[in-house]
Amino acid sequence: MLPFAIVSLLVTVSQGCGRHSGDPDTAVESSYGSLWPLPQEVRFSSLSLKIRGSSFQIWDADESSAGPSCSLLKNAYRRYYEYMFPNERTKGHTNGFADPSELSQLHVWITSSDSECDGYPVVTSDESYELSVNQTYAVLKAPKVWGALRGLETFSQLLYEDEYGARNINLTEISDFPRFQHRGVLLDTSRHFLPIKVILANLEAMAMNKFNVFHWHIVDDPSFPYLSRTFPQLSQMGAYHPYTHVYTPADVKMIIEFARLRGIRVVPEFDTPGHTQSWGKGQKDLLTPCYSGPTPSGTFGPVNPILNTTYDFMNLLFKEISAVFPDPYVHLGGDEVDFKCWKSNPDITKFMEQHSFGEDYSKLESFYIQKLLDIVTSTQKGYMIWQEVFDNGVKLKPDTLIHVWKGNQQQYQNEMAKITLSGYKTFLSTPWYLNRISYGQDWTSLYRADPHNFTGTDEQKKLVIGGEACMWGEYVDSTNLMPRMWPRASAVGERLWSAKDVTDVNDAYSRLSKHRCRMVERGIQAQSLFSSFCRHEYKGI
Amino acid sequence: MLPFAIVSLLVTVSQGCGRHSGDPDTAVESSYGSLWPLPQEVRFSSLSLKIRGSSFQIWDADESSAGPSCSLLKNAYRRYYEYMFPNERTKGHTNGFADPSELSQLHVWITSSDSECDGYPVVTSDESYELSVNQTYAVLKAPKVWGALRGLETFSQLLYEDEYGARNINLTEISDFPRFQHRGVLLDTSRHFLPIKVILANLEAMAMNKFNVFHWHIVDDPSFPYLSRTFPQLSQMGAYHPYTHVYTPADVKMIIEFARLRGIRVVPEFDTPGHTQSWGKGQKDLLTPCYSGPTPSGTFGPVNPILNTTYDFMNLLFKEISAVFPDPYVHLGGDEVDFKCWKSNPDITKFMEQHSFGEDYSKLESFYIQKLLDIVTSTQKGYMIWQEVFDNGVKLKPDTLIHVWKGNQQQYQNEMAKITLSGYKTFLSTPWYLNRISYGQDWTSLYRADPHNFTGTDEQKKLVIGGEACMWGEYVDSTNLMPRMWPRASAVGERLWSAKDVTDVNDAYSRLSKHRCRMVERGIQAQSLFSSFCRHEYKGI
Repeated sequence: MLPFAIVSLLVTVSQGCGRHSGDPDTAVESSYGSLWPLPQEVRFSSLSLKIRGSSFQIWDADESSAGPSCSLLKNAYRRYYEYMFPNERTKGHTNGFADPSELSQLHVWITSSDSECDGYPVVTSDESYELSVNQTYAVLKAPKVWGALRGLETFSQLLYEDEYGARNINLTEISDFPRFQHRGVLLDTSRHFLPIKVILANLEAMAMNKFNVFHWHIVDDPSFPYLSRTFPQLSQMGAYHPYTHVYTPADVKMIIEFARLRGIRVVPEFDTPGHTQSWGKGQKDLLTPCYSGPTPSGTFGPVNPILNTTYDFMNLLFKEISAVFPDPYVHLGGDEVDFKCWKSNPDITKFMEQHSFGEDYSKLESFYIQKLLDIVTSTQKGYMIWQEVFDNGVKLKPDTLIHVWKGNQQQYQNEMAKITLSGYKTFLSTPWYLNRISYGQDWTSLYRADPHNFTGTDEQKKLVIGGEACMWGEYVDSTNLMPRMWPRASAVGERLWSAKDVTDVNDAYSRLSKHRCRMVERGIQAQSLFSSFCRHEYKGI
Repeated sequence: MLPFAIVSLLVTVSQGCGRHSGDPDTAVESSYGSLWPLPQEVRFSSLSLKIRGSSFQIWDADESSAGPSCSLLKNAYRRYYEYMFPNERTKGHTNGFADPSELSQLHVWITSSDSECDGYPVVTSDESYELSVNQTYAVLKAPKVWGALRGLETFSQLLYEDEYGARNINLTEISDFPRFQHRGVLLDTSRHFLPIKVILANLEAMAMNKFNVFHWHIVDDPSFPYLSRTFPQLSQMGAYHPYTHVYTPADVKMIIEFARLRGIRVVPEFDTPGHTQSWGKGQKDLLTPCYSGPTPSGTFGPVNPILNTTYDFMNLLFKEISAVFPDPYVHLGGDEVDFKCWKSNPDITKFMEQHSFGEDYSKLESFYIQKLLDIVTSTQKGYMIWQEVFDNGVKLKPDTLIHVWKGNQQQYQNEMAKITLSGYKTFLSTPWYLNRISYGQDWTSLYRADPHNFTGTDEQKKLVIGGEACMWGEYVDSTNLMPRMWPRASAVGERLWSAKDVTDVNDAYSRLSKHRCRMVERGIQAQSLFSSFCRHEYKGI
């Protein structure tokens, strides 16, 4: 395989700010070219074929259950054609004389009778595919369109340029499927508003890295940019700006469809009862009034769990959410509830007494969460929650997904063991807080974390559905999100997709360097791993 | 003063990744609006005037020594007009009826007989100015065009929008000059090639922060992108790519002129004898052949100091450099010379014996550097060098500028004391390595460092000419340079421009938040300080 970009072999230390021990060896050249994440099984032949952009075509196979009406695939064909041949337009059919040294077609064959072309991806969606590059044509077989999307990305990664700039591809056999079902990226649109362009660019990069869940942490303390049709005053009062810094219903719909076309689920998080300061601006009596001694202090705490109006509000809001977001799951948050304000409020104190909660405010939290879970259950949605809700012993439905984010390595591994021992499904974010930056090649530590690295039975391990890379928004907005996210999130992407034993950071460095240059060529502002260059540097600035 | 953007008062902690102790109080509102860096003297009146973009004009004052032929000022008038009124075009003269509640003109008055309009800024250039915003018109007085450029930036920072979006300015008197003469930003174009667009964008941001030196670390070990007319093979062989990853003579000229128009000097660094791996690719026998036992190992070390051909080469190269770069100074590097290769080479050993250097290779280094300094002196240039050259006791010209970059706070302060005690001028970079990133508001530690904080006499302090923010290129390229640089470098900018007692980080946070939103509005991809918003978010992505 010829590399997409030659990584410089010159490794130097400048001004005391160079490489660190444990950094990958940049001189290693992967035998897997620029594949990222690495497929489960790859066999390359040394025989290469040429590809001509002007005549190359992506077709629905005759036997495919997805026909010309499947616009998801049509959009994907166009997208990958443009990625592979950015400066060309196909001229239509070839002249009919098959050149044995040339690959002229990719046939895409959806093998299951229901292609799911018009559906939404879900946690159980089949993303497997088989890709075979043979003399004169290539075949991509997948039970569902979701696998075809993954296979198209892989196919596009097989192309490389020879020294004349001609595109080549080697004869190849690939059989592939994800190791984990839930491979997510969290964006926080409350601490900073992210313009839609950024969200879309991020979804494009996610597809290039085979991520399949956009966890949309859409609201939080600082702002409420979700424009609710039922409660428009929430964003009217709670967004940074009521028109320019909100997501309208049309925006949300567009983002969901853009994600669907890339096989990505959109799971919204409406985090309560904490992290709701911005909610209180537009919804009177929703938050708990804090007291300073015998009088209200004028500040507010978490959602007020003792009023019926709270649950009426939540009922209507989550009814809307369940209709707006098609995914069968909603993320309900439940993290970091600060009890100080509740403790100060005499009405809460009285309520605690009436319910015999004693001094244990986690019981009050559980009281709230259980009522909320009932409300969400009534909308036919499943739910995800941050680990505290489990830690506090709230009664959960068996299919609840528990999101682990706390502690050091030992602690989160113990937590995963505990959760799965209780029979719950879980996914991991602790080692993948991408907002936390440090100097140097920190992608290697992201890469080395593994959600299965805890002490437990095979049955327990099966309850781990994946993980999420989180980009909290304190220090991130549209100016720096993309380079901070990519290619660091790519490390998480490979960990969650590829086989468990794909752990060689030197091999990964070689492939990831090329993959990041490919992302840059596709317009993604993905930063560099180390001193080196891309054939086409980012010029979007 | 109304702020340009309201900083949210909601301060929250999310997922354990929030604020840190020592972070500024985001609730403080500066009485200095969005001024950055803070001028030496500012007096505001509470009386405000309106400004109409359609009729506002910037004029040369009748008494000004810079007339209509001064294109530097004309370019600046256009630039600042467009910054202040991005959506408008002036319609020409006002109707002659002066509205007392409106500011209609800014008169720019260069008071010295030589405006220096067609010259280059140098280290002694006068950047002082006085700005007076009176009823109906404003006057900007400066001895030289350089002060006028600084004053135009300040004037543009006085504008603010009222709640109807109308532009306002308060009656104001400002008297201003820089605390330090040398206020630099270092870019490294060797570890990653930076497209010209990025260098220009960075120069624009530098002007917005009153920086006046672009230290261009143009070549180093990984690549040699400088296209030399005398030795074109240096970039032909040593650049990452001989056409796409080089700076041609036309590029360099354009960058120098772009910088000059903003009052910014371009000081190139051609670092020797270490950091020269890329030089060796195009220049035979320039580098020292390293030996493995009795035979050459095939690798190369620093510049070979024992050959006459080395000095012939340097003589021709620095002759070219002195002609290409108009600044009276060249940075000669001299840092981090690794003696291992020299030690391995039998010819070097013999040379050491002949010169009675014993085992002291720093004497050989000094031998090289002294010959190089003689060569550079013969081109009529002064020189800057990294601190090691001073530390090694090389004989230096009295006007040598010594660049401090090593050690912890105690060590660099001792170094500054030692250098100035020896009577040399110096400037500081150690606390301002912006490539080194960490989580959170690290601009505050950049802001707290001060080049005068060492034990020494007033005479010694006077020898400190300023400092430089350095952005080494291991992990920085066109995808992430701008948000990583700005507004972090702004903290250094204020430290080097404003009075010594301007140290209140809460006040700075308030002004810098607005300043960064202003940079974003001007198209600079400057990242956020903390959870908040700009009226116009960056949409360049």
